[in-house]
Amino acid sequence: MWVSTFCSGDPSVFEPYWRKNGGKCTITISGHDSLSYFSDPNSVCWYMEPELQEAIRRVHRVVGNAETEGCHVVAGTGSTVLFQAALYALSTSSSSSVAAEPMKVVCAAPYYSQYKEQVELLQSRLYEWGGDAETFDGSAAPFIEVVTSPNNPDGSLREAAVANKTGNGKLIHDLAYYWPNYTPITRPADYDIMLFTLTKCTGHAGSRIGWALVKDVEVAKKMTTFMQITTIGVSKDSQLRAAKILNVVAEDCEQHAADADKTFFGESRKLMAERWEKLREAVKDKKDVFTLPKYPKRYCNFSGRYFQPAPAFGWLECKEGCDASALMKAHNVLTRGGETFGVSSRYTRISMIGREEEFERFIERISGIQCVDEEDEEEEEEEEGLVVMNGNNGGDVIRLGNGTSNGHGKWLEQVEVQ
Amino acid sequence: MWVSTFCSGDPSVFEPYWRKNGGKCTITISGHDSLSYFSDPNSVCWYMEPELQEAIRRVHRVVGNAETEGCHVVAGTGSTVLFQAALYALSTSSSSSVAAEPMKVVCAAPYYSQYKEQVELLQSRLYEWGGDAETFDGSAAPFIEVVTSPNNPDGSLREAAVANKTGNGKLIHDLAYYWPNYTPITRPADYDIMLFTLTKCTGHAGSRIGWALVKDVEVAKKMTTFMQITTIGVSKDSQLRAAKILNVVAEDCEQHAADADKTFFGESRKLMAERWEKLREAVKDKKDVFTLPKYPKRYCNFSGRYFQPAPAFGWLECKEGCDASALMKAHNVLTRGGETFGVSSRYTRISMIGREEEFERFIERISGIQCVDEEDEEEEEEEEGLVVMNGNNGGDVIRLGNGTSNGHGKWLEQVEVQ
Repeated sequence: MWVSTFCSGDPSVFEPYWRKNGGKCTITISGHDSLSYFSDPNSVCWYMEPELQEAIRRVHRVVGNAETEGCHVVAGTGSTVLFQAALYALSTSSSSSVAAEPMKVVCAAPYYSQYKEQVELLQSRLYEWGGDAETFDGSAAPFIEVVTSPNNPDGSLREAAVANKTGNGKLIHDLAYYWPNYTPITRPADYDIMLFTLTKCTGHAGSRIGWALVKDVEVAKKMTTFMQITTIGVSKDSQLRAAKILNVVAEDCEQHAADADKTFFGESRKLMAERWEKLREAVKDKKDVFTLPKYPKRYCNFSGRYFQPAPAFGWLECKEGCDASALMKAHNVLTRGGETFGVSSRYTRISMIGREEEFERFIERISGIQCVDEEDEEEEEEEEGLVVMNGNNGGDVIRLGNGTSNGHGKWLEQVEVQ
Repeated sequence: MWVSTFCSGDPSVFEPYWRKNGGKCTITISGHDSLSYFSDPNSVCWYMEPELQEAIRRVHRVVGNAETEGCHVVAGTGSTVLFQAALYALSTSSSSSVAAEPMKVVCAAPYYSQYKEQVELLQSRLYEWGGDAETFDGSAAPFIEVVTSPNNPDGSLREAAVANKTGNGKLIHDLAYYWPNYTPITRPADYDIMLFTLTKCTGHAGSRIGWALVKDVEVAKKMTTFMQITTIGVSKDSQLRAAKILNVVAEDCEQHAADADKTFFGESRKLMAERWEKLREAVKDKKDVFTLPKYPKRYCNFSGRYFQPAPAFGWLECKEGCDASALMKAHNVLTRGGETFGVSSRYTRISMIGREEEFERFIERISGIQCVDEEDEEEEEEEEGLVVMNGNNGGDVIRLGNGTSNGHGKWLEQVEVQ
């Protein structure tokens, strides 16, 4: 019986690259370093290390995926917290202060399931979850729309669904996956609030470093205030490490400007493309069971050529009446069902960024899948260990799988992370 | 004209110690380290590095300031966020779920001003600020009482004011200052939820590492869930650094068990005691203007002898009708007035843990202070730079002081940190 590792929710796909090439990213921290709360009195985000801010601007400039000119940079313990900081900033701005009702937060379905959890966690009177942006009536009152592009879970490139139509919407763009490892970079994104995270850019999830590019200085200040009151800033050790990693990545891109395939992003894209090829190959004779989205080739300004997106998640669609995640579970592959993303259970999400061995086992198993009913599932469930294919930035169901025992097994089954 | 440094709110008093002795604390982080979200599937706090958990238990055992046996350890980005995690856990537990009203959060005045800010930030329906625990009627409904001991701002040792009387109160003990650098360790603290932070223990504010010792596993799980949803864990780079620092401190204590003065805590206590001596000397002929609290000598189990507490803050009391912080401001010393701590403006708080040069200037200035009215203040204000004596863990007013110019000067005047 094979047991999936606990870490399967991580962006582990990039780990071999860093094992091979991580030498330049090594940092040393002395006992007297980073003693202070403060970093940069000249920045709106006073707890942010200047090196990190410079490295962030540099990597966006080199990759061409976001316009940083005229933006303030706000650092976060991952981008998750910056989403909450943005909610706070937008729902307490002067134009919203008269609102008696909490501001609705909406996102076009299928949407990243954790937005709802974050919005609802503390039952705030400032904002509340408003569901699918596509069916939301944005004419009545100010609201917040989150746009995830490329989208988690389905990899689509998106623009605002409702905010720009009514004029009442304030926008947060979650661009966690807008990097050339996942998608062609067609232009520098240029929005009011743009969220990014080291986790998805380079795979360094454990450092918990995210950043927001924010045009309006008052919004940037409010987001900084949120960070100040909730955590008094962001770990400097990780900020300095992230600065180092981003600088190494940017330098690498500069040196291989003529051959982007040799960069971190180029090598990572190749890996992702290979996985997608394997997945498409494994399901190509299963069109009566399920299908995958098709992504058109686009010209990537960073790579200097056309390629197809290779998103961090596979978004499986089963035929009407079939429960996609139950079907996968029947083959001992744990995925995240469509209902958590605001759509039908005939969809489910699988991670494309887990460990190689897990991905290979998944491909083996998916090759044997056919639509089955629930009784069949239960019979099969005991036979072998579970593969977790839920991946990152989408509320992964992390399960220890069969046969693993520790004191908190049941508790950990409930743990879901980005 | 002298200008106070921007960093005056930090626990900078320990920096010279680490410059001299920090060599053993150096850590190196490679490019492929800490890639994962996860750390320890065997712990309730799955994102916590096992080394950090062990180091925390070790340092408490060596110092004797908290009973860790039977406690779960939950890591936070500082202890600030763990206070919020505890509020979430306590206000959503099964016994509270029937409550239609938000749970009141109370603390005996003078209380740490940031508790109120944290409680009120998102206008939660789960909990709300209830003010001074001493005047709170705890008989009506479940509530949460925060006990800070030694207390910020006044350095007093405290027990619950109301929670134990009514039986309705759930307790959070903020023990950030219960270390032998500030106060005699009279016994191992042994409460349901105990909060600590590296910032106050060793002075490493920039790493943003705090921890909670939690008896009830369900509370520990809910706190972990809060951390998972808001930030998906805590920077591993800083966790590993904190583990290293705490192990070095613990080893130092073990090696000098017979002569605690030679340890980090012993040397730090000496520094703090010297500052308090200077402060008491400077104000001893000013009893008609203001007074300082007196702290009785107690036997410190860690040091093996009696000594007087030397709190992180000086809590100045002026005579009736005098505004203490205005008086200090008239002498270009920025402090935090009593009203923000829930008491009269004739009190004000000064930091005892800032930089040496700032402290020396403060002593010079306080030597010249007499009670003045507001007009006098304004005249004097332009004459020289401001000394910021607001210190840490208490909502410091960070000001750049006169003569400093940067693009965000006014904004930074509003920045307050622990």
